[in-house]
Amino acid sequence: MSQSFRRSAADMVYGIIGLGLMGGSLAKAFRESIVNVCGCGGKIFACDRSSAVLTQAKEEGVIDKGWQPEQVKEMLPLCDVVYICLYPEATRVFLSENAPYFKESALVTDIAGVKSIVINGLSQDFCSKADFIPGHPMAGSEKEGYGHSSARIFAGRNYIIMPQPGNTAEHIEFLKNLVTEIGFTRIIETSAETHDRRIAFTSQLCHVIASALVASAEDTRITEFGGGSYEDLTRIAMINAPLWTELFLENRKELLEQITHFETELSRIRLYIEQNNPAELAAMLEDVRQKRSAMSRIETSV
Amino acid sequence: MSQSFRRSAADMVYGIIGLGLMGGSLAKAFRESIVNVCGCGGKIFACDRSSAVLTQAKEEGVIDKGWQPEQVKEMLPLCDVVYICLYPEATRVFLSENAPYFKESALVTDIAGVKSIVINGLSQDFCSKADFIPGHPMAGSEKEGYGHSSARIFAGRNYIIMPQPGNTAEHIEFLKNLVTEIGFTRIIETSAETHDRRIAFTSQLCHVIASALVASAEDTRITEFGGGSYEDLTRIAMINAPLWTELFLENRKELLEQITHFETELSRIRLYIEQNNPAELAAMLEDVRQKRSAMSRIETSV
Repeated sequence: MSQSFRRSAADMVYGIIGLGLMGGSLAKAFRESIVNVCGCGGKIFACDRSSAVLTQAKEEGVIDKGWQPEQVKEMLPLCDVVYICLYPEATRVFLSENAPYFKESALVTDIAGVKSIVINGLSQDFCSKADFIPGHPMAGSEKEGYGHSSARIFAGRNYIIMPQPGNTAEHIEFLKNLVTEIGFTRIIETSAETHDRRIAFTSQLCHVIASALVASAEDTRITEFGGGSYEDLTRIAMINAPLWTELFLENRKELLEQITHFETELSRIRLYIEQNNPAELAAMLEDVRQKRSAMSRIETSV
Repeated sequence: MSQSFRRSAADMVYGIIGLGLMGGSLAKAFRESIVNVCGCGGKIFACDRSSAVLTQAKEEGVIDKGWQPEQVKEMLPLCDVVYICLYPEATRVFLSENAPYFKESALVTDIAGVKSIVINGLSQDFCSKADFIPGHPMAGSEKEGYGHSSARIFAGRNYIIMPQPGNTAEHIEFLKNLVTEIGFTRIIETSAETHDRRIAFTSQLCHVIASALVASAEDTRITEFGGGSYEDLTRIAMINAPLWTELFLENRKELLEQITHFETELSRIRLYIEQNNPAELAAMLEDVRQKRSAMSRIETSV
């Protein structure tokens, strides 16, 4: 990373909206890797509805100051970089309601797992004020809240950004440097539409499958008969129900298409089993093995 | 573990049929934990169709002597404990064809992932000679063969045994001590029918789902959009096609029932998404979370 990025990043004021698992992890990572130089002018501010979380984060030295939601209009004008770490619908509402308070030409980004709803909801007011680069850090945990946040969860992960026509090249470059500095190793630039289609498959469909697989278990003693596969496939079924309900429904069209693709392939395997057809079944499984082997590797969510 | 078990186990002659991932791992674990006392009388023999593997295992000190399949009738009469580490159908055939050569009252066990086919195929000849305790070590790897075998893969895993009416209490106790000594932490005793039904769910259905999930991927670049979930759900799609074809088809009836249960729950989630029904969807996901949390934990297959 260039020294000039490091110097400028260390002097910025960061505002994090929502200090949950992701917001907390980002704050910790920024503190460790970006705004940690003695005497630098940088600050990390956070806004959260829990004053207990704000107090804890302040005491731990993770943030410099915490702000209640009703005070956010005092915090936003101070921030050079704003990370909205809320659920998708709340992100859309936040950007719309607080448009007037962002600092002129601030870099604003988010972490919402569905993008069309956020981008299509941007107001003229907001767009003329701040420079919004939609983003999706592909990291997380089945554990929720600031208490489980950690600067470590980003190491080796993918980061998707969806640059908009009005974004400045400097801001895009800055955001890429920022997320690389905290551990992300692959940054994908794409459109909101491609993001929503591909994420419907790699993320939402996987959560749907994991949930169905837990729902269809005879009883909770089934893991006594487990060899690891069932645990691997259902870890993400320790699901944050309100968040994933929102993600599934806000990306409904794409997700239903991906469920259909999956059901088609499941039916094909089922058919070969019903037909007691070893040749077709073995050929399909061999294709699957080769296709899976050709997929690039990323860190797994353990 | 009792000293008397250790002493008697260290003096036994172990015969391993099939020195692949599982047979090789068992041989290594026995060498490290059981037959490693200087001056003990124990031996580890193995039979494999690959003379290269036998030579390697001998050179590594993992086995004392290797035997070609056509020499197995010379090896079997020497073995106090025989571990059949073959595919299910090959296990059935091996037990049937080699019945006369087992040592009188030898403890014989296997690792086949489906059990009814093996147990229903036992010959009178074999049963009157040896004491067969069907078993299923719930451990493995997506990597195959002796080259990937390791004494470490058993740590913290489940071991299922299906005692038969004729088994001696001493043999059952010995087998439990043996697998505990090499790392397994939970031993479940059940019937072949229960095993086949539950394994159809925790193991075979998971492999079917992982395979369908890879087959339904748009392309192999999809993991660029992955955050770990897709990797977790499809690691086991690096599948050994001939083995799993056999496992799926030999447990066809149970597996088809489990696929149906899963499809029913998947359809339920799909319906709530189609109906854009946040209340029902969130309630179901919350149930899933609680059910998953109530399931006991095991080591995962990383």
